[in-house]
Amino acid sequence: MKSIKRRSDCPVSYALDLFGDKWSLLIIRDMMFRNKRTYGELFSSEEKIATNILADRLKMLECAGLIKSAPGGKKRSHYTLTQKAIDLVPVILEIVRWSARYDPQTAAPKEFVERIGTDKEQFARELQAGLTRHHVANDVTE
Amino acid sequence: MKSIKRRSDCPVSYALDLFGDKWSLLIIRDMMFRNKRTYGELFSSEEKIATNILADRLKMLECAGLIKSAPGGKKRSHYTLTQKAIDLVPVILEIVRWSARYDPQTAAPKEFVERIGTDKEQFARELQAGLTRHHVANDVTE
Repeated sequence: MKSIKRRSDCPVSYALDLFGDKWSLLIIRDMMFRNKRTYGELFSSEEKIATNILADRLKMLECAGLIKSAPGGKKRSHYTLTQKAIDLVPVILEIVRWSARYDPQTAAPKEFVERIGTDKEQFARELQAGLTRHHVANDVTE
Repeated sequence: MKSIKRRSDCPVSYALDLFGDKWSLLIIRDMMFRNKRTYGELFSSEEKIATNILADRLKMLECAGLIKSAPGGKKRSHYTLTQKAIDLVPVILEIVRWSARYDPQTAAPKEFVERIGTDKEQFARELQAGLTRHHVANDVTE
């Protein structure tokens, strides 16, 4: 089991202890918005994650209680998001809004960004409800 | 000048290219909420950042357009947040809310978290307005 080093009781520090790196939130993004579930699917991201980094981050995310794996061997494992990860939706929506404002080359879909701007709370609730149905509701181990 | 490697046009990836590490948002936190401005002040965080990491992250944050430095030599440089960093307030508030929910040992002040829960948009605007006054409004180079 990976271990997570706790640096302080600060809430920003706590979050960064769990997903403060270049890849963890991209893995969560792929599971949230691109419906990826397996190691192979997660490996085929456009950011070209290295296989050792993906394996490391999946262990870390599981240790942090953000994903669960159903057995099947490394390459066949099937991953689902926990409620703790699904509750990161508002964080990710704010990141998308910020990047869309500052990155001239952003690929953020215009309607998605507009919905965040006008109706964020309801939009987040809908996304979270859909993710909970797909990832948590059928999970008999939850 | 540091260079930032762009991995994709995804808005989550863009943000992580700029501050996806364990320290950058802690430096921004210290400048936002603890009024730290100098290298020495930023070095004295409770998370005990190493001096080489602090120096590296400050260069990175400047390159990313998130902070500005006024000259004075490495240890005497005076840093201010840009509007781009101040616009991360909603991201940080959502992180605080999430960590306060999931970390039993959180040091997040109860009233702060309650205000995020009941009145986030207005709370963010007030924080941002105060930061803009202190960091941007007096900056003749902006």
